[in-house]
Amino acid sequence: MNVLPMPHIGVLPAGPLGTIADVSGVTVGHCTLAQGATQTGVTVVRPHRDDAYRHKVPAAASLINGFGKSIGLVQIEELGVLETPIALTNTFGVAAVAQAQIRAAIASNPQIGREWPTVNPLAFECNDGYLNDIQALAVEASHYARAFDSAACDFERGSVGAGRGMSSFDLKGGIGSASRVVSVASKAFTVGALVLANFGRLPMLTIDGVPIGRELAARRHTASRAATSKPEQGSIIMIVATDAPLAARQLKRLAFRAAAGLARTGSVYGHGSGDIALAFSTAYTVAQEADFISTPPILNDTRLDPLFQACADSVEQAIIDALWSAKTVTGRDAHARLSLHEAAPDLAQLLNSRTA
Amino acid sequence: MNVLPMPHIGVLPAGPLGTIADVSGVTVGHCTLAQGATQTGVTVVRPHRDDAYRHKVPAAASLINGFGKSIGLVQIEELGVLETPIALTNTFGVAAVAQAQIRAAIASNPQIGREWPTVNPLAFECNDGYLNDIQALAVEASHYARAFDSAACDFERGSVGAGRGMSSFDLKGGIGSASRVVSVASKAFTVGALVLANFGRLPMLTIDGVPIGRELAARRHTASRAATSKPEQGSIIMIVATDAPLAARQLKRLAFRAAAGLARTGSVYGHGSGDIALAFSTAYTVAQEADFISTPPILNDTRLDPLFQACADSVEQAIIDALWSAKTVTGRDAHARLSLHEAAPDLAQLLNSRTA
Amino acid sequence: MNVLPMPHIGVLPAGPLGTIADVSGVTVGHCTLAQGATQTGVTVVRPHRDDAYRHKVPAAASLINGFGKSIGLVQIEELGVLETPIALTNTFGVAAVAQAQIRAAIASNPQIGREWPTVNPLAFECNDGYLNDIQALAVEASHYARAFDSAACDFERGSVGAGRGMSSFDLKGGIGSASRVVSVASKAFTVGALVLANFGRLPMLTIDGVPIGRELAARRHTASRAATSKPEQGSIIMIVATDAPLAARQLKRLAFRAAAGLARTGSVYGHGSGDIALAFSTAYTVAQEADFISTPPILNDTRLDPLFQACADSVEQAIIDALWSAKTVTGRDAHARLSLHEAAPDLAQLLNSRTA
Amino acid sequence: MNVLPMPHIGVLPAGPLGTIADVSGVTVGHCTLAQGATQTGVTVVRPHRDDAYRHKVPAAASLINGFGKSIGLVQIEELGVLETPIALTNTFGVAAVAQAQIRAAIASNPQIGREWPTVNPLAFECNDGYLNDIQALAVEASHYARAFDSAACDFERGSVGAGRGMSSFDLKGGIGSASRVVSVASKAFTVGALVLANFGRLPMLTIDGVPIGRELAARRHTASRAATSKPEQGSIIMIVATDAPLAARQLKRLAFRAAAGLARTGSVYGHGSGDIALAFSTAYTVAQEADFISTPPILNDTRLDPLFQACADSVEQAIIDALWSAKTVTGRDAHARLSLHEAAPDLAQLLNSRTA
Repeated sequence: MNVLPMPHIGVLPAGPLGTIADVSGVTVGHCTLAQGATQTGVTVVRPHRDDAYRHKVPAAASLINGFGKSIGLVQIEELGVLETPIALTNTFGVAAVAQAQIRAAIASNPQIGREWPTVNPLAFECNDGYLNDIQALAVEASHYARAFDSAACDFERGSVGAGRGMSSFDLKGGIGSASRVVSVASKAFTVGALVLANFGRLPMLTIDGVPIGRELAARRHTASRAATSKPEQGSIIMIVATDAPLAARQLKRLAFRAAAGLARTGSVYGHGSGDIALAFSTAYTVAQEADFISTPPILNDTRLDPLFQACADSVEQAIIDALWSAKTVTGRDAHARLSLHEAAPDLAQLLNSRTA
Repeated sequence: MNVLPMPHIGVLPAGPLGTIADVSGVTVGHCTLAQGATQTGVTVVRPHRDDAYRHKVPAAASLINGFGKSIGLVQIEELGVLETPIALTNTFGVAAVAQAQIRAAIASNPQIGREWPTVNPLAFECNDGYLNDIQALAVEASHYARAFDSAACDFERGSVGAGRGMSSFDLKGGIGSASRVVSVASKAFTVGALVLANFGRLPMLTIDGVPIGRELAARRHTASRAATSKPEQGSIIMIVATDAPLAARQLKRLAFRAAAGLARTGSVYGHGSGDIALAFSTAYTVAQEADFISTPPILNDTRLDPLFQACADSVEQAIIDALWSAKTVTGRDAHARLSLHEAAPDLAQLLNSRTA
Repeated sequence: MNVLPMPHIGVLPAGPLGTIADVSGVTVGHCTLAQGATQTGVTVVRPHRDDAYRHKVPAAASLINGFGKSIGLVQIEELGVLETPIALTNTFGVAAVAQAQIRAAIASNPQIGREWPTVNPLAFECNDGYLNDIQALAVEASHYARAFDSAACDFERGSVGAGRGMSSFDLKGGIGSASRVVSVASKAFTVGALVLANFGRLPMLTIDGVPIGRELAARRHTASRAATSKPEQGSIIMIVATDAPLAARQLKRLAFRAAAGLARTGSVYGHGSGDIALAFSTAYTVAQEADFISTPPILNDTRLDPLFQACADSVEQAIIDALWSAKTVTGRDAHARLSLHEAAPDLAQLLNSRTA
Repeated sequence: MNVLPMPHIGVLPAGPLGTIADVSGVTVGHCTLAQGATQTGVTVVRPHRDDAYRHKVPAAASLINGFGKSIGLVQIEELGVLETPIALTNTFGVAAVAQAQIRAAIASNPQIGREWPTVNPLAFECNDGYLNDIQALAVEASHYARAFDSAACDFERGSVGAGRGMSSFDLKGGIGSASRVVSVASKAFTVGALVLANFGRLPMLTIDGVPIGRELAARRHTASRAATSKPEQGSIIMIVATDAPLAARQLKRLAFRAAAGLARTGSVYGHGSGDIALAFSTAYTVAQEADFISTPPILNDTRLDPLFQACADSVEQAIIDALWSAKTVTGRDAHARLSLHEAAPDLAQLLNSRTA
């Protein structure tokens, strides 16, 4: 159905899959709950196939707008490592998912909370309450397990997993992904992004620089100024993976460049939008029991610009991918979100002509 | 039994109750689970008697050492308000407690997650895994409700609520509280502290400047240097309340002074110790639906020093109060933590003579 | 010469002057040094006409990329107020300017550093070393005084003041300014921006969503990928003023939205680019000697979205204004930077047709 | 005269010199200005003997209380390296010293600000305005050069260099230094501290846990509560060096433990006290022109506790060393600060008996 090819953001080439799984070892799994008023789910990103607690990957988050209820960011800021796979779900599902992460970590490592420290679960969220009956607290531990078990290089995007009930620009949002390959110091490195897009008002929507949201909003007889004055209750989670050897401090810098890609889609990081980016590197791991951590030589900060560009472009592309991939969903109280393609049947023409 | 009077830290006077409840309107409740290997619980601090979501108090946290799994701090950093009562429990109990806070908020405010934004639960934790079978995940939503319902000005300290299974300085830790009254700009203001003390190795223990831990550790035939080289897995949560009219930015400054009180008990903020302070003011509230927020005149920053002193002294006093109030507890696998009084029957003499 | 009208960014209206001076009370002055290899200067932004130390305005900065040598930000982060006018100059000029600010503050307030605390000078910088002989350290205290004395509502933009030697997108950069008016809670508020634009490589340049830089770079026979791999040594300082009553915490949120406007011009916050935004409010002042600070009712955070949009749009507009206003300058070693208009004589056509 | 041996803080052993120079390669130099109303100076800490710009050491700062005007911390936060020696001076001297650092860096590296990025000067300050005529702006570039040139392993402490005019606890403060040696993962590492002590009111003074300041203040007929209500205008700069291989993120954690040592001397980080700690490692350097940075294996965070203890103890010891080493100074307007030894001739007795 999506015969219209998606615009390619920027000038950097994508990896072969065009998703975060182009970063070697990274896999993604979903568990989708789609029945009546329950339109929600869980998505899991695994940095590698090993135990996440015993082989921690370096990571850091940037809080672009901290209106969010994610679990696990305090310790990542202090220690710069992940201890569990990354989970995404709805706002009132994070606790159940974090419980499931704790149980899974203990099952694999019974020393946790006894000889070893406790484990730091990591669960991100957006509010899918427009389509999903969020007050039902439908997400359970088993859904995390199913998403985890299904993680693969090849994964769906759009109205799946945590993205099932999400809205973006008053359209159907959800899961999107993209990648870019850059050359740094004569080596090729990959940056991949996966987003849970649940932000934005229609008049803001900008695709590859074209503010098509103004036109679409005008058609809906929605005055754009009125619309922008209503506070957002959305959010976006942006997961950035790379195989470049970076320290946690540098991953924080990298994660922050997600803000540039996000802004280019029309966001001004609205008050009520929890906009959070997390970046991790697969180039090395930190062993739980080691005295010293040996890393490959780390990129000099002076060489980071191509990775920064790749992060911004991947995130922008992943957001568009979420809109492009999402299918129309109807949920609680007959609330519906049209897919971008249904809302804009003339999308190709809109993208080729700038609106006045 | 505790006939020995507790040393008074510093020169500032305490309030009439000598607890955080000296800040008018603040109440504290516990739910204690104490059966066999289950030695844990929940403690709730309520800033006032009204609905916490509709009448948000200004608040801010300082992350002294971010090795912690508390829930809710990201949004407090961004917005500077509390939306639920403050809950404390064990590390693997925060998710259940956060779920309970969400359910309670929705029950009182069905608009949450629909017309209104989602609610930000706030749950702090320490690892009580030495005494408590933390892997059993014994804390449930109903325990939060019971702690909430029992909140009062008059409350127990020591081995109760969230403090039931906590250890401090290899002794029995738990809940402690204290207050100080200061004069600022010709007005009297109260600062109160409540701590969940679960940190420290015995050789570090310092009470009112006297390093009695070295002596106690020597008696245990524990070489102090060996002991300090083992990483802590403890933590301390320090809740600071005041009736002084402060903005969130200033409350962050106030909260940080908890680090001074903590240090004076011997802590160097160990790697594995989640040391977090949160301060709130009861001088005004932020209404959910208001366009503008009217506050009383806010204290000039140049006048904050007495409050800073009161915070440091209250926190130090509250830590000592936790040790002073705690009773010996035996938990999982016959693990036991002696109370300070049992471990040091000659405590009075120790405090009066400096160890060489 | 600039007969081509500048595109208007977004849908919000500008204020009557279309500059930061639309925020009542704000004035701007320049001192321009333009002789041979010396192509530099000083720009001063005054929040109001009173003494800046005795009547401090609330303010906060967001460090978008901290590769910068600005002076004064540590204390602003802690206390949330300005104590001097805002100065902008070249990287090696900040010390001389800070000295001048100290001397001026002492001259007006001899109590400073004695009965009163020391004063916190505030000097921002970008590196104009391509056009200007920065190693000559040409900026002196007297230049600050001249810029201060000339502050007015009506001020030049482009290759003047601190902007004299600045480059942006391999073109002539410098000083730009813009404003937007929004309605919040039935009241009109103004947001104004003034930028010192010295960032960006030509292939990145994007004006109102149109990536014209790719086309211009192609004409220069510069492969875009090669160009983006060279690290930037630029920077941008973004000063945001508003008459809306905001607390310092909220001003930090507002300042951060400058990152969105910046990104829309093509920036990904390059490694070597010191990208810093500072926002202040003119709605009230903090008196040095007061016990309590009375403020007008402060906007609820839930009402901030229109201001966020205005900040992003003003900053994007101000960056374009800098390019639009700047005239070609030749400096040290015959280095030259063409104005946008000279570099792109067919600018109107470029902006009307999207590049393939 | 100082026949009374200084108490040894804690149980960790000091290095052979008992100063920051126990960290191999670290040297310290002073330039002291002591004539009439001019009682000030410059102190320089060099991490190694090589060019600081071409061979950057990893470093990070913790802002314990950001009431300060230091220059250079923004970029260190972003990049985690030092580019110049560390300079300390009075508040109104930082600009002149930063200028001198820029000139020195350019003289050694003419590429700076041209092919290479600009250099980030690093100058810390405290306000010595009680003894020194700070408004005279007596510190000049040549004083930095003299301090730099005199840097050696063997250096004076007390009323010298930047410490010449500093006051602490209403006594003579200044430069102090100390070191500790710890065993981590079967290797010996050294932590050294150098402080510029200019903070504290007499009633707060606590030496090795003994609150002798209360007694000394009582003798001065100064009611302690009145005294504590006057805001401090002091500050303390704490420089921490180590030969342990740490990343910048870890050095930030290490630097923060200076807050514990500081608190144990009686500080509650007063509103007007700029309390800043900076830590650096000499275990490796970052080359300006390298693509990749090879480091030795980095310590696992789980092994940091002994270093944290060493930092806190070194800083506390260094503060006491400053008081112990300082000699009485009389400066502007006949203001005088007594040395601790003169103010407390019975210091030995005071330290051996706890005050009631």
